[in-house]
Amino acid sequence: MPAPNMELIVSLAKRRGFVFPSSEIYGGMGGFWDYGPLGVELKNNVKAAWWRQMVQLRDDIVGLDAAIIMNPRVWEVSGHVAGFSDPMVDCRNCKFRFRADDLKGPPSEIACPNCGNRGTLTEPRQFHLMFQTRVGPLEESASVAYLRPETAQGIFVNFANVATTARKRLPFGIAQIGKSFRNEITPGNFIFRDREFEQMEVEFFVHPAQEDQWFAYWVEERLRWWTDVMGIGAERLRLRPHDPDELSHYSRQTTDIEYAFPMGWSELEGVADRTDFDLKAHAEASGKSLSVFDEASGEHVTPYVIEPAMGVDRALLTVLLDAYEEQQVEGEKRVVLHLRPSLAPIKVAVMPLLRNRPELVELGQRLASDLRLRLPATYDDTASIGKLYRRQDEIGTPFCVTVDVETLADGAATIRERDSMTQQRVAISALPDRIASLVSGAPWEGGQPERSPAGE
Amino acid sequence: MPAPNMELIVSLAKRRGFVFPSSEIYGGMGGFWDYGPLGVELKNNVKAAWWRQMVQLRDDIVGLDAAIIMNPRVWEVSGHVAGFSDPMVDCRNCKFRFRADDLKGPPSEIACPNCGNRGTLTEPRQFHLMFQTRVGPLEESASVAYLRPETAQGIFVNFANVATTARKRLPFGIAQIGKSFRNEITPGNFIFRDREFEQMEVEFFVHPAQEDQWFAYWVEERLRWWTDVMGIGAERLRLRPHDPDELSHYSRQTTDIEYAFPMGWSELEGVADRTDFDLKAHAEASGKSLSVFDEASGEHVTPYVIEPAMGVDRALLTVLLDAYEEQQVEGEKRVVLHLRPSLAPIKVAVMPLLRNRPELVELGQRLASDLRLRLPATYDDTASIGKLYRRQDEIGTPFCVTVDVETLADGAATIRERDSMTQQRVAISALPDRIASLVSGAPWEGGQPERSPAGE
Repeated sequence: MPAPNMELIVSLAKRRGFVFPSSEIYGGMGGFWDYGPLGVELKNNVKAAWWRQMVQLRDDIVGLDAAIIMNPRVWEVSGHVAGFSDPMVDCRNCKFRFRADDLKGPPSEIACPNCGNRGTLTEPRQFHLMFQTRVGPLEESASVAYLRPETAQGIFVNFANVATTARKRLPFGIAQIGKSFRNEITPGNFIFRDREFEQMEVEFFVHPAQEDQWFAYWVEERLRWWTDVMGIGAERLRLRPHDPDELSHYSRQTTDIEYAFPMGWSELEGVADRTDFDLKAHAEASGKSLSVFDEASGEHVTPYVIEPAMGVDRALLTVLLDAYEEQQVEGEKRVVLHLRPSLAPIKVAVMPLLRNRPELVELGQRLASDLRLRLPATYDDTASIGKLYRRQDEIGTPFCVTVDVETLADGAATIRERDSMTQQRVAISALPDRIASLVSGAPWEGGQPERSPAGE
Repeated sequence: MPAPNMELIVSLAKRRGFVFPSSEIYGGMGGFWDYGPLGVELKNNVKAAWWRQMVQLRDDIVGLDAAIIMNPRVWEVSGHVAGFSDPMVDCRNCKFRFRADDLKGPPSEIACPNCGNRGTLTEPRQFHLMFQTRVGPLEESASVAYLRPETAQGIFVNFANVATTARKRLPFGIAQIGKSFRNEITPGNFIFRDREFEQMEVEFFVHPAQEDQWFAYWVEERLRWWTDVMGIGAERLRLRPHDPDELSHYSRQTTDIEYAFPMGWSELEGVADRTDFDLKAHAEASGKSLSVFDEASGEHVTPYVIEPAMGVDRALLTVLLDAYEEQQVEGEKRVVLHLRPSLAPIKVAVMPLLRNRPELVELGQRLASDLRLRLPATYDDTASIGKLYRRQDEIGTPFCVTVDVETLADGAATIRERDSMTQQRVAISALPDRIASLVSGAPWEGGQPERSPAGE
């Protein structure tokens, strides 16, 4: 199954309330997006799956939630104030600005990609990617501060506090989920590259002698998460080690997990070996010890850091792209999101086969209320059953439950599974347990072909 | 039980890894805080409890997650650019700045509270509370943008997109959890008033004729959440309707839920009747319709808005304050956090009675791993059993499980409950279910007094 083009995902996201352009009633805001009712649930599910895997199921990683605005010294010491910039080129005629990397030749030779003039492009200059603000009430001394461009530094400056209070010994990690901000020159490809985005990062601290084995471990572990937990097709994932000349200044080795996006293979997650670059820099600048006593080697060491890091927004985009399928069913187009049940925003939708029968409506609403105590459930009776199924298919709801006239007699309802479009009849008293078990991953077996919606 | 003083909570928070001063190795950053391993779990539990109550258990509220940086028109139209400021006074001698409200007299008459000079204070001037930044690569036209000072406006500008895509009819609400920023002149009282904070807000849209009944509903509903879900003592909560002269410009009536903080009764949550002020302003400025067709009244209406809104950080502070107790147990001080099990960062701690018996250590570690598949669990054997219990008491862990020599013979372990300090013997095979059930709220019955730790 090839990846769908981006426009189909943008359209679905807007139409069904996953992602809207931010402040759209005022014309939007380039590089900023708002998550709608389904998008926020999907995003929460992706974050919860990561947190469960990286923190809750492990005894060697703990969490952290540092502030977005930190003491500006952090960014001087990390090298961001001096070095976190992209080379850009201005057009002296039309005032447009471009990333030098995106130009197809030296600025002195090519035409401006916007106005077409020649000889109007400047030589490349460094454009800073950190957003600045000022903090504090004293105007004369209000200090310049930055919106963090990465969550990692919040972990490094809290290293000693966390290691002490959590009583952790090497190897151990600190995990964080939170917003970061970059004033990207060219945000784009929907939520692939935005100016405000959310990151999920672990800084995993190891003895320097174990650098390579832990680097290899994390590359494998993270790749496995994408296939086994997120359900991404393995054939659309690949590993790409960075060439020495593209490594960040702090990194000795980095491997990207790439996904086959519509615009080509691109980074989905990076696993970086940051060595002791950051801890050493902060220890020296702050005068605080950021080493730990390693019992295995009997010495104080400044740990090396292996960092698996990704953007949540890009992860969500990948999940949507990978789950999207258009099918032809009985001569009509069916759009279906094959989301893992654990990720689906809504787990089960209840609908009456006949919406003009008050006793069925009441029964369906009561059933939805019961189910809602266990998992995200919805009730809908505003269309024919066939249309209601398609509505749920398109947002990835794995199970629909239909109550019909027989239900009133036999106390059973029909569960319909999204991917196979097959059905099972189950006693209503057993429904909550059955749906919860299916959502937890129990196999769907013995489904019968969909009955034609004779009721409508 | 009177509220403990703030210093005890600040000290516990730092000592055990709930909350650290932000960027502490560089001297901190006034009004910014970082949440440590236990703090992030407690905060996540508070947010999840709110989201479950306000979104997942209801069919009339959906979620949203709007960007922190929005189109700046949003803040012009909402009135924040013109009006979101505090009056402040400068000292011409020492350059200190004060909130005019905090001075004990007119600036022309009193001494500077910092340097003591008379006649050096300026008349009050408006000091703007929104943080500014600049977005976009074109220097000449890079637009001024703001870090949102409230999450509410993100809901109002998305009203039409959400109402359409979620197919909601009046009354319905939109819920949001997210960071907001205010350049407070005097942040303080730990995480009570900080410059970067997280909000949980619902904007509940109703027919204007139902304004008062829904306002009363939400005041009652929210007060009940604090006692029944968060477990806050009712005697330390009170309702305080705002006087007409303290209402915000957008509000027709507001009632605060106040808590008896160490520094006095203060706002914990506010329920505001914002009328149609915001939707009407945004509809007029954007030219987009922000009215909906109300079937019950057969007319298009611009809804009125009832807003229950609170700060997550302040909620977490309240939970810690209300749970904190110092007891005398057998002549020694016991610090205990009486957190609801649903809120506790760690639900169960496993420990061996004898840490020099490898088979007990191995059994305990295996048991902790098994439990971790169900709920947050930890293993600890780095101190005597009495000290390990106190460590868990102090961070609110509701249950400890001890394995001892008898466990090797009878396959049973001891559960010890935090508040009563009583114990039960339970088969290890039944432990995960039993702990999960207790954490879900099953009553603790039949506990026996703690046995003296004969093993140590």
